[in-house]
Formats: sequence, C-alpha cells, structure tokens
Amino acid sequence: MNNRWGNVFWSMDYDDFDQIDLPNLTVTEPNPAHSLAFRRFSSEQVVTFNKLQADIIRQHSDAPIAHNYMGRITDFDHFRVGADLDIAAWDSYPLGFLEDRVEADDAHKQRYARQGDPDFQAFHHDLYRSVGRGRLWVMEQQPGPVNWAPYNPAPLPGMVRLWSWEAFAHGAETVSYFRWRQAPMAQEQMHAGLLRPDHEPSPGLDEACRVARELADAPDVSLSQAPVALIFDYEAEFAWKIQPHGRGLSYFALVFETYRAMRALGLSIDILPATRVDLSGYRVVAAPGLVFMSEDLKAALVECGAELLIGPRSGARDEDMKTPVPLPPALPGFDLTVSQVESLHPDATIPLANGGCVKAYREFLEGEVDVLERTNDGEAVVVAKDKLRYLGGWLDHDALKRVTRQACQAAGIDTLDLPDGVRLRESGRERFWFNYDSVEHTVADLRIPPASFIRQEKPA
Amino acid sequence: MNNRWGNVFWSMDYDDFDQIDLPNLTVTEPNPAHSLAFRRFSSEQVVTFNKLQADIIRQHSDAPIAHNYMGRITDFDHFRVGADLDIAAWDSYPLGFLEDRVEADDAHKQRYARQGDPDFQAFHHDLYRSVGRGRLWVMEQQPGPVNWAPYNPAPLPGMVRLWSWEAFAHGAETVSYFRWRQAPMAQEQMHAGLLRPDHEPSPGLDEACRVARELADAPDVSLSQAPVALIFDYEAEFAWKIQPHGRGLSYFALVFETYRAMRALGLSIDILPATRVDLSGYRVVAAPGLVFMSEDLKAALVECGAELLIGPRSGARDEDMKTPVPLPPALPGFDLTVSQVESLHPDATIPLANGGCVKAYREFLEGEVDVLERTNDGEAVVVAKDKLRYLGGWLDHDALKRVTRQACQAAGIDTLDLPDGVRLRESGRERFWFNYDSVEHTVADLRIPPASFIRQEKPA
Amino acid sequence: MNNRWGNVFWSMDYDDFDQIDLPNLTVTEPNPAHSLAFRRFSSEQVVTFNKLQADIIRQHSDAPIAHNYMGRITDFDHFRVGADLDIAAWDSYPLGFLEDRVEADDAHKQRYARQGDPDFQAFHHDLYRSVGRGRLWVMEQQPGPVNWAPYNPAPLPGMVRLWSWEAFAHGAETVSYFRWRQAPMAQEQMHAGLLRPDHEPSPGLDEACRVARELADAPDVSLSQAPVALIFDYEAEFAWKIQPHGRGLSYFALVFETYRAMRALGLSIDILPATRVDLSGYRVVAAPGLVFMSEDLKAALVECGAELLIGPRSGARDEDMKTPVPLPPALPGFDLTVSQVESLHPDATIPLANGGCVKAYREFLEGEVDVLERTNDGEAVVVAKDKLRYLGGWLDHDALKRVTRQACQAAGIDTLDLPDGVRLRESGRERFWFNYDSVEHTVADLRIPPASFIRQEKPA
Repeated sequence: MNNRWGNVFWSMDYDDFDQIDLPNLTVTEPNPAHSLAFRRFSSEQVVTFNKLQADIIRQHSDAPIAHNYMGRITDFDHFRVGADLDIAAWDSYPLGFLEDRVEADDAHKQRYARQGDPDFQAFHHDLYRSVGRGRLWVMEQQPGPVNWAPYNPAPLPGMVRLWSWEAFAHGAETVSYFRWRQAPMAQEQMHAGLLRPDHEPSPGLDEACRVARELADAPDVSLSQAPVALIFDYEAEFAWKIQPHGRGLSYFALVFETYRAMRALGLSIDILPATRVDLSGYRVVAAPGLVFMSEDLKAALVECGAELLIGPRSGARDEDMKTPVPLPPALPGFDLTVSQVESLHPDATIPLANGGCVKAYREFLEGEVDVLERTNDGEAVVVAKDKLRYLGGWLDHDALKRVTRQACQAAGIDTLDLPDGVRLRESGRERFWFNYDSVEHTVADLRIPPASFIRQEKPA
Repeated sequence: MNNRWGNVFWSMDYDDFDQIDLPNLTVTEPNPAHSLAFRRFSSEQVVTFNKLQADIIRQHSDAPIAHNYMGRITDFDHFRVGADLDIAAWDSYPLGFLEDRVEADDAHKQRYARQGDPDFQAFHHDLYRSVGRGRLWVMEQQPGPVNWAPYNPAPLPGMVRLWSWEAFAHGAETVSYFRWRQAPMAQEQMHAGLLRPDHEPSPGLDEACRVARELADAPDVSLSQAPVALIFDYEAEFAWKIQPHGRGLSYFALVFETYRAMRALGLSIDILPATRVDLSGYRVVAAPGLVFMSEDLKAALVECGAELLIGPRSGARDEDMKTPVPLPPALPGFDLTVSQVESLHPDATIPLANGGCVKAYREFLEGEVDVLERTNDGEAVVVAKDKLRYLGGWLDHDALKRVTRQACQAAGIDTLDLPDGVRLRESGRERFWFNYDSVEHTVADLRIPPASFIRQEKPA
Repeated sequence: MNNRWGNVFWSMDYDDFDQIDLPNLTVTEPNPAHSLAFRRFSSEQVVTFNKLQADIIRQHSDAPIAHNYMGRITDFDHFRVGADLDIAAWDSYPLGFLEDRVEADDAHKQRYARQGDPDFQAFHHDLYRSVGRGRLWVMEQQPGPVNWAPYNPAPLPGMVRLWSWEAFAHGAETVSYFRWRQAPMAQEQMHAGLLRPDHEPSPGLDEACRVARELADAPDVSLSQAPVALIFDYEAEFAWKIQPHGRGLSYFALVFETYRAMRALGLSIDILPATRVDLSGYRVVAAPGLVFMSEDLKAALVECGAELLIGPRSGARDEDMKTPVPLPPALPGFDLTVSQVESLHPDATIPLANGGCVKAYREFLEGEVDVLERTNDGEAVVVAKDKLRYLGGWLDHDALKRVTRQACQAAGIDTLDLPDGVRLRESGRERFWFNYDSVEHTVADLRIPPASFIRQEKPA
C-alpha cells in the first residue's frame, strides 16, 4: 500500500494498517491517494446500506423499489446505488438549483431566474435514467417558489407544465409534485405547494391539472437509444475534487458544459457510466475529463466505431491516483503525450484560431497526430487520428460546439444551431421542442411560445 | 407546545420539556418557532438583568438611570429594557457606522465617508427617544477618526458640531464626547479624543467648545409630537432574521429605507413600538414589514384616522411563527390576500409603471381593493382602500417617496423634495436644516454651507 | 509590566505573571502590547531553535550552513535567524507568488501571469542577501507550472533563464531548481520538475542548461554597495499586523511599493535591517512605515549625510506599542508632529497638486517645515527640512516615484523612467537589463526581447 499510494513522498510511509486515520487533520494536505480511498469508502458505505434495506424490502414485497437523488450531488456513486434499485427518482428544483449550484454568469442567471437553466433538468433526467437502467421518476417537482435558495423567485407561468413534460420526454414514468399543500408551520412555510396554506389552489395546481389532462390524451413517450453518448464517472469527480489543479475546476462542470454544447446542436444524449464497455449503437461518444480509464474502456472506445471526443485529463491517473508512465492519455494506436498542464485565471482565456477559446485548464500536447484546432499562436489544442479526437484543454461553448458538430458530421448526424433557450429532445417516435426563454422563438418553422413546448411526430 | 410550534413537521415532536435544547447543533436548520422562542428568551434575559440592577440602584438613589445603546443592535427588545430606565442613551459613531453597518452602495459610502449617513443618526435619535419615553442622551459622540471600522477617515470640519446639534434637534438632553483624551496605550490608541495623547486640543475640541457656547445662548429645544409615525418592532426583526426568505433581506433595512424616504420628503418622524395602540395625533402611520400584528394593533391602525402605509409581510406570522389562516395580512375591512411571495436577486428589479421598482422581495396580491401602483406588466404592487395602503413588496427609494408623498397629501401634510444630503427636523418651535453634503445646498431660499446647519424659528 | 503595556486600560491589570495567557480567546481584541510580546516571543523561538541546530552542526562540520526562506513570510525576524547562519537561501516561485501573495490589480496579474511580478523576486534577493550578510542562494527555483497556487500557468519561454540570471545579478551564488524530476505520485504530482515524470526533459531543463553554459563562459558577478538603501523591519511588520488601522494596510506592501517605485527609476537597492546604524556610503536612504525607531537609528539617519525618505507612521510606537509623547515622529532637529491619522477606503484617494495621490492611509501634519507635496486642498503631505523628507501618507506609484526622483537628484543619482516590465540591476562592474514584459522594449538604445535580459559592462 505504501508503494501504491506513493507514501514515500513527504515521508508518509505507514508501518501498520492501524496507523491509517481519516485523511483530515493532517499537517498539510493529505495524500490524494488517501483522499481517494476515503471517498471510495464513503461511497461504498452508501451502496452497502442501501442494498441492506433493499434486500429486506424484497423479502416482503415485489413492488419496484426507488430512491430519490438530487441535482448535482456527487458524494457517492449513483450508478452503484442504482444497481440495487428498480427505479431512479430525483428531486427537480429548477429555480433553486439555478441559484445555488449551476455555474453561470449573472446574465444567464438573471435571464433564466424564473425558468431554470435550460440544460440542468435534462442532464439529470438523462443521468438518472441511466442510473435507473431506463426507469426514471421525478419524485419531487418544484411547483412554485421554494424557500431554501439564496433567492426564491416564482416561476414564469407555463414552467411547471414545461418541466413536467420535459421529464416525460426524457423517459420519466412519473412526475410527482412537492408538495401537496404549503405547510403553514415550521422550516418550509415558504415552500410553495399545489395548494396554498389555506387549501386554495396555487398557480402550480392549474398547470399540474393541465399536464394530467394532456397525459390522459397522449400516447406513452417511447424511449430509444440516443445517437450520442456522454460518459459521466463519479470517481473522476472524486479525483478532480481532490486535485483540481486550478481554483474552481470541476469535472461536473466540464461534463455539463459538454452536454450543453451538444444540446445547443439539437442532439439527444444518453449518459453512460465509465464501467460500460458495450458502446454499440452510438455514433458519437464523448468522454471529457475522464481521469481514470481502464484498459477495457480504452479498447472499447477505440473499437466501437463511433466518432470519439476524448480529453482533457483523460487517463491522467492510475487507480491509486498516481500519474501513469508512459504519460497520459496512452490511448491505443494514438501517438499523443500530454507533456505539461496548466490552470488559468478565468479571465486569462487563450483564443483559438477558428474562434472561441481555451479557458481555465490547458494541456501541452506532443505526438504524431493531426491538429484540428490551434491557438492563435499555433499551438495544438484539439488533435485527431481517424475517429479519435483529443481535446487538450477546457474549450468554451463556441469551440465545444464546433468540435462536436464536426464529429457529428463525420458520423452522419444532422445538427441544428438552436437559440440559447430552445432545446430539442427526440424520443422513439416524437420530437419535443422546449422554449426556456421568456420570448417566443421560431425554430424549424415552428413558433414556440415562451415557457412552453411543442410535441410533434418524428419525421420518418 | 408541539402543536403551537408545528413540531409534527420533520418529526420534531417532543415528549418532555426537558428534551428541548438550544436551537443550534440541529441536524439541519432548527424550527423557526424554536429560534423565535430562543430570541425572545435571550432578549428577556437582558430585560431582567437590567431591571435587577435598576431596582438595586433605586433603593439607594433618586437620580435618573440611563444605559447606552448602540447603532443597529437588535439582539434584544430595547423598548422593554428602556421601560425600566429613565433615560435612553446611545453611542453615535456616524463614520464608523457608515462603514460597517449601513447598507448602501459604494458611491453613497464614498460621498458621505467624512460625514456619516444623513439619516442613520436621526433614525437612532428618534428610535431611542421613543425607547426613553422622551428622554434621550448621546452618551458617546464620535469626536474625530475612530479605530474600529474597516476604514477610519477624519470627519469634515463642522461635522462634530453638526452631529451634536442634530442630536439636540431630535430631543437629546446631553451630548457627551467619547473620549476626553486620546489614550496613548492599548486597544484604542487610534480612537480620537477631544484632546490628543499629548494633551493638546484636537480639531473636535474646538467644535465641541463652539457647541457649548452656542447652547449657552440658545433656548431649549422644544419637543412636540411629529405628524408622522413609523413603527419599529424588535420581534419583527427577530422573525426576518430567522426566515429572511432571500439573501440579505433585513427588517431593519426596510424600516430604515422607509425612514430615509420620509426624510427625503422633509418629514419629522416619531418611531413607535408595535405595542403602542394609542396612535392619536398622528396623521400618517407607516408599519413596513411588521410580521407580528396583534388584533389590537390592527384595530388601532384602522381606527386611528391616520393615512396608513402597511406592508409588505404584515401579519405574516402568528405569535408562534406559523403562517395564519386566513392568509395575511387579514386587516379588518380590507379584502386582501397575499397569495404567494418571492425573493429576488438584487439585480432582478421589477419596474413600476409610475417609475421606480420593486426589489428583493415581492408579494402576489388578491382581493377587491384599489390598485395604486402596478408593475409594467400590470400586476398590483400597492393597493388601497380608504386610508389604508398596502405595499406588496420592497419599494425602491423613488417609489417609497411617491407612495409616502401621496399619503401625506391625503393627510394634508406638506412635503419637500430635499437634495440627497439635506435634511429637515422640526421641533415644537424651531426648524433645523442640516446639510450632510460636502457642497453647499440652497433649500427654501436658505443657503446651507457644507457640513453645517441652520436653525430658524418655525413659521406660525 | 502593567505600566509598560498600559494594562489599566479596560481593567486589564495583572496581579501575577502566572495570569498572563496567550493573546487569544480574550473577551474582545487583546492588548496590542500583549500581541507584540507574543510575536516577539514566537520569533525568538525560531531564532533559538535554529541556533541550537546550527551550533550542533558546527561541532561536526566547517561547511557553511544555509536555510531556505520563502516569499513574503514575515512571521519571524529573518535578520536574527540569518545572523546564526552563513548563507541565506530562499524559494523563488514567481508565478505562484504573483497569484497568491502579491497585492496588485487584476490587469497587472494578468499581464505578468506567465512571468511573475517584475519586482517581487528582486526584492527578496536584495532582502535575503542582506539577511545572509552578502551570501545568497536560491534553494528552490520554479522550473515550470506549480501545483499550489490558485491558478498555475506555465511560464513564458525564457523566464526560467531570466529568473536564474536575475538571481545572479542580485548576488546569488547558487540557483537550484525545484525539482529534478516531477513526482508521479502524491501531493505534488502537478509541480513541474526539470524532468517530466517519465524522465524526459521538460521545457525548464533546456533553459537551465543554457544558464549553465552561459555561466561557464561568464565572469563572476561582482557585488558592490548600492547607492540607495531601503530599511525593512520585521517588528514594524508585526506592529502593522497588530494595529493596521485600516482594512488591508500592510507594512510589507508599503515597503514593497517603495521598492517598486525605486526600481521604476532604474535604481539598484540594498535592503537593511532597522538595527543597522552604520549607513555610510548610501546617498539615499528610505525608511517607510518604520513604527519603531530607536534613538540610535534616528540619530544615524539624520547624521549619515544621505538624502532621507521617512514616513509615514515613523516612530509611531514605543517599544511596548504605546504612543510616545511628544507625538511622532520626533525626529532630531525636525519640527514635525503627526496630529491625527486616518485610514481610507481604497477608492477614496486624495489627489495631490503635483499629480498622483495619497491612498489608504494619511496623516495630518503640524510643524515648521517646508512643504514639498500638497493635496489639491492645500494640505501638506510631504514635508522636508535639509536632507530629511517626511511622507505623511501612503503615496501612489506616481507620487512615490516623483518624491524619490527628487531625493536622487538632490543626491546626484541619475534616474531613468523605465517601462513597466523593464528593470535594471547594477552590480560592481555590470549592468543587467531585464524585460519581464511579453513584448520587446527599447531602453537606453537597447532592444530587449520579451522574457529576456541583456548583460553589459557598466560604463566607466
């Protein structure tokens, strides 16, 4: 263990397993290998405890078992908890989450203050649908202003209906509103319900009733595999939190920005765990920031036939949080070495020759590969060989869109250029156009009112 | 008690009074009813201890008993402490308080850095004169730069005199400077005195001497009831601190901004406790943010004959911090229901059709009442019936002034439109015009030098 | 001790030395005399422990003993530790230090993000050369991006060489790079070395090799006394930290800004301890912010024949942190009294009639002296008599340069007006021109490439 953790550094060698404490109260920062082991252990405690309870329930009941997750909580591996349950549910609070956990500038937060971020709910629907192996519920849907965010505005009229239908479009079997009646006492008195504290209907109830009527008249939403896959790995999130290298660098944010760029192109996306090595059927696979990459996963990616978007920081650590030698990313048949990395002040962006920029994090690349994107100074940022593209830095929205669009073109997937608040979700037989903006938008000859959506048959 | 606190929520029921601890170290936030009980208890401890000491003194002395309060300290109910004393004194540090406890933008703080906020001292004079049931002292008056604020500038020449006279204009019997000689040692070495550490006079001493000479030649300032009353309730402050609903929302700030708007109209104001139900003689009464409103107070307000400015958040909680049903404000003869509330990011202001805006906090209003002020979108913000006006949100300075002016007009009170740094205080027989600005202003044909004041007989 | 500390203030008198605890956990802030005593004690612990170890080594070895200091660490008196060692070494991380301990605006930090602050390294070379009584090493030289700063960019090509040569120009005998090989494990995996984790050369190695070749061909840098001296006193730093009087006021920053102004004039500087009273050979001596001034030092300054730049806050405390009477600065033969002091918000600068401004801290001056610099309002800021100039406030860069240039002119020292990133260091026989900027500059007919330097013979 001393060897695998590299404890010789700073004379951290242990003589006995009993000497190992929690990775806190250390003289200076703890060994990142120690921190990683602790995060894995903590996650596994949740997995084990959940399984213990599920097993008890199953001795007495055949009913499907669900548990509800939250937005952007990454303290444990949800895929591993989900493996022991039948349904993945989550609590969707678009306005509260925009205020307290979406990283965006003030202009974005102000624009969507009464609608929520246009991608945050969809991301979690797609993530938890994967955690639930296809079975997704929304256990708590925000029905009005809540009480717990820094600021708690009321939603635009129409948003409760939009949020509900967006969940169904992403495969939710159930949308349940929290709460039935606003409590007239205690901590959550200012959390809206479908009824007011005096039992009168709140604005949210009308929208929920409309959704119920619409659902009764509508066929079931049909699920189907998306053409594009995005890998999300809780252990990579652990690793980035332990060694971000620059203030504010976040794996979740990197994956979410990749998802946002894909969505701005009109794509529907499946989110996959890093343990999944059957990638058949996907035409584009993206794996940003994947610190840990097993040899099986590397092989699966290279051999699956999809256009690939890999990097940055891919395979940057071995399973014990050490830098592997040969240096990363060490992808099969891909002559690329990340020779040096740097983190940047948020304002110190590096412009790309084709537009957009690298921000916050950048890698220096060596190897015999094609260069797709360069800085204005001519340094390689995105490199490629055959179907594999490696992104040697954190690209901004414009550059992420450009590189993703190019991969889609290579894969024969049509892309759109959607306005900021407009999003498209395709199910098996339908298209759902959502407009998160407070003004009407026209897309593909459809006029979509603000805070509303349009459901149509998918063209054959 | 379980029922009154609503302990059933989150399974907080107690079986025994001995189980009740302090409202800290709870798993998540404590029950607001619990927090309120604790704040009342803490406040009552101060009241009881003060009374214990005052009673001992009174066994041995007939001298009036005073205690000195501070600026914007609201941890205990000053009215209840003051009831057991003969004089309310306070420590007035205009420059330090501007830096460390006045909520204002940088431009305001820079403009008044050497003068202090134009309303903060007057507010506390009026508040503590009420706490002292008419008897007010300034126990510590800032005589020069102090040592404890984030920044400690020297006052503009003239301000020590201005502050002193402003206290007298608001009814102070005594202005005492802190300190006599600047201490040459220990923590407060950089706190100016009337003498320097070397016993030479400081600039403040000259001004204090001038005030003394002027006082000797002047008649006593005569106190008289103001035409306008503003209610300040320490329990409402407790409730807002416990459940602000939005980051930065403060009852003190709301009342102070109402006071500032009144002052900008040239009004003289009495500040009253919420326990006062004899409102006779007042022609305008304002009660912003008054979370707790007894039935007696509601009746007193509606029946007193004054033009009323009530809201927001009026009567929003019962005495145990529960939302009352029927919903607030439940004012007699006033058909109004606050159906929903929201808090807003500081930048997300909602413009009003007549100018100005709602900021930070807004209520949605239902009922058969006249609409005085609407948002640009047509939603009611200020509603009225007869003499009662309800403000369904936190109005900015312009809107607060407009609504207050309208109430004054209805009450037959003349208003002015004073420049930012100019203020008027009327006593029984005199008018005091104060200029907090660093440039001369001309108001009502009077040229008022910077950092100075003019005293004149009140017109008959 | 009660008398010397002024413990009578706030009834802090001790009855017994056993009652004296550490100056923390006090009811409110501790007596500054107590805090100062604690800082002196802590510093002395370091001195004593270092001496203990050095004495042991000297029993067994004649090799010179060095210890490595850091950038802007002022917790103990480095001069006193250095007195027991043979060489002063330090760890120079120009990019990390710019991010985490240089006070400068964002534009400056962005401009020099890949080069480091143009004066920070030189300052510490000069400081620690003095601590080492002429013998200076760089024990750890940053060779590429590091891991520990908020942001960790890669240096511009050329900077590793520039930093190395700058150290030699300031008298370093050794520049040692940290580290040899980038560690593939544990906390510092992202700290660059001369070799990459895979043993391949990093960009820093090429530059280090070039420096080695250049050194082999070059004569030794010759040290000589600089014409200008700047006093740096660790006890003054203690005093400013204990009683800054205004948020952010820092003795280190004041001395460093003085150093920066001198460097912008092309000056080479010796940094001296306040215990040094032999000032012979210096033609200009600056002692900003020197809270403690012994009578010996005051006499030495006035009698040394150099042009003097003294103040602000000179001699503001006696050795027990009390304000002396007569009031400061009490300089021999100099009729000046600081009658009052004030601290200012960073935006509340006070313009000077000749350009530039006073910022953050200002003194009010009385006495029969010449006035060299006034505010726009005519108040004295810099006063003088004969060779002594007293600066009654914190001058900005422009004003500091102007006042320093005037002192140099009086002393017959030529000055330059160097571009922001260009600096000059003169040794005994050579001139080194350093360009920290990312663009070429032409100075004194020399074209200096970006991130580079020119070495030339000093004109006779």
